[in-house]
Amino acid sequence: METPHGKIETPIFMPVGTRATVKTLDPADLEKIGAQIILGNTYHLYLRPGYQLIRKAGGLHKFMNWNKPILTDSGGFQVMSLKGLRKITPEGVRFQSHIDGSYHMFTPEKVIEIQNAIGADIIMSFDECPPYPATRKYVADSLKTTLDWAKRGKDAHRQENRQALFGIVQGGIYKDLREESANKLMEMDFPGYSIGGLAVGEPKEELLEITEFLNNILPQNKPRYLMGVGTPLDLLNNIANGCDMFDCVMPTRNARKGTIFTRNGKMIIKSARYKEDFSPVDPECECYTCRNFSRAYIRHLFNVDEILGMRLATIHSLHFYLELMKKARQSILDGSFSDFRNKFSFKLNEKME
Amino acid sequence: METPHGKIETPIFMPVGTRATVKTLDPADLEKIGAQIILGNTYHLYLRPGYQLIRKAGGLHKFMNWNKPILTDSGGFQVMSLKGLRKITPEGVRFQSHIDGSYHMFTPEKVIEIQNAIGADIIMSFDECPPYPATRKYVADSLKTTLDWAKRGKDAHRQENRQALFGIVQGGIYKDLREESANKLMEMDFPGYSIGGLAVGEPKEELLEITEFLNNILPQNKPRYLMGVGTPLDLLNNIANGCDMFDCVMPTRNARKGTIFTRNGKMIIKSARYKEDFSPVDPECECYTCRNFSRAYIRHLFNVDEILGMRLATIHSLHFYLELMKKARQSILDGSFSDFRNKFSFKLNEKME
Repeated sequence: METPHGKIETPIFMPVGTRATVKTLDPADLEKIGAQIILGNTYHLYLRPGYQLIRKAGGLHKFMNWNKPILTDSGGFQVMSLKGLRKITPEGVRFQSHIDGSYHMFTPEKVIEIQNAIGADIIMSFDECPPYPATRKYVADSLKTTLDWAKRGKDAHRQENRQALFGIVQGGIYKDLREESANKLMEMDFPGYSIGGLAVGEPKEELLEITEFLNNILPQNKPRYLMGVGTPLDLLNNIANGCDMFDCVMPTRNARKGTIFTRNGKMIIKSARYKEDFSPVDPECECYTCRNFSRAYIRHLFNVDEILGMRLATIHSLHFYLELMKKARQSILDGSFSDFRNKFSFKLNEKME
Repeated sequence: METPHGKIETPIFMPVGTRATVKTLDPADLEKIGAQIILGNTYHLYLRPGYQLIRKAGGLHKFMNWNKPILTDSGGFQVMSLKGLRKITPEGVRFQSHIDGSYHMFTPEKVIEIQNAIGADIIMSFDECPPYPATRKYVADSLKTTLDWAKRGKDAHRQENRQALFGIVQGGIYKDLREESANKLMEMDFPGYSIGGLAVGEPKEELLEITEFLNNILPQNKPRYLMGVGTPLDLLNNIANGCDMFDCVMPTRNARKGTIFTRNGKMIIKSARYKEDFSPVDPECECYTCRNFSRAYIRHLFNVDEILGMRLATIHSLHFYLELMKKARQSILDGSFSDFRNKFSFKLNEKME
């Protein structure tokens, strides 16, 4: 995929940099672990530091000193999560800030204006993200709104920064609604399609059924971004269903709490078993953490609440995710993806969920 | 100064790495800001992760992956601070852990055993550090204990790792006691001398009087370490009084709270005045923070409690301290130290204290 800030090889995992930083890391760390693209959250950046400030800074890339691609989400998921603090109308969503209770309004046009100012390479249409479970009627009505918003957002998008605006497929777990959503968006001809409204509580089987179903509908020649997913196995299973792009706070949030993802499963680094274990988290790993520090040292850092522990754990977990995507790409190129996925799944099935 | 892990150029400031990490930084950060030597705290390392564990790791250098010199303190200041949790006897200090209330005993021999296990290049005799204010009688009695402990520690020191054991000059603000302390330690012939028991609440003038007084007593050809000092001006003023080595949590602790030391004074980076200030903390500074990030970005990070803010602030403040020491060394070599100090003091007198 070509973007104004360089090429992205898919499938790819995007580390989440909610508030203009991937928590605990700096841009040099991200370069070293091989991040090709990171994600910023429109809702959070809108509230702090504000999109006008980011515009004045010359865009998010300059503001945070990250010169590779960035994707921003639509804010739809975040405002949906503000239960009791938001009201959805055909015009948009009126909501209160989770920080100070102040009132704000997101419309499809406003969300595009914000994302134009932030300046990410890939941006999202504003969507209504239904909860799970939700009735068919609720999801069908919601979908109408989202499709209308997609059209309005596309009309409002100022193309001058060559930002690629993706449409977001909604429709909950209802295949006919997903199909309608995908087809209507494809009529509008977006340069890429996101699959939203999944990983919001539904069983994994339902998620996979939907991505498998959409695999036969969405165009082969445009990127598909499965929003908010997931575990390493989720990534491989959805790559098999044709998904190209992923983001999730799972590796970073877990790492900050001392749970590190490795090719052998999750490692609870605080555990007493690592107290005198002077081997690296993964002896075969090439990341900064594994080349320089022991399990015993990282355990000590978590034990005494030293910030460096969170950073070292985050570096390894993200490096693991990105290496997994690299191996997936290689195996796709040489035709062995299915084999690669089966072996990895077999090894981790019990340990990684 | 030569150590088993390399040469140190003095005068030097030692970043404080209390619990096997200089808070928020990794060893690569420390290398980049030019740290020649860092400090570890014997008391804290003894409690967590424990000195037996550090011994098993192959010493503190290997445990934390820092291959340059390390100095450990004696623990005397820390146990003195455990008011109500410690009892001083001629044998040593019995104290309760500030973490779990468990009972422990530091004797001069034990403190050397711990430091032998930790394996720092420069280690300290166990001392009793009197508070300020303290009566002459209290300080005189305390000094007897400290001198006895210095002798016992020297006898207990196992030389096999070529660790340099420093004696600690005590005596409060009483010049005759300071003189007695220095002379008795010099009779024992330590490879270096620390000046302890200052920066514990006495006026700065009293501190400077003591270091000026000791300047004429302590041997010229051995390093002098002024413990726990201080502001940038304190460093220059005490270099003028012959001090070679310094440590203080001031730059790092302040940085984590958003107060950054610069050559133009302290910068409260959270201040609203930096909200849209896209210039670096110091446009002439060469540190990683100043070459890559703006005041507005660092302010944003502090504003939303992102850990990267603390790290970027720490990097600049320590870089500033170490650059100041570098300039002090250069000015000493070319005979312009006094001029350098006066210009710097004039510029900062109002802003830095």
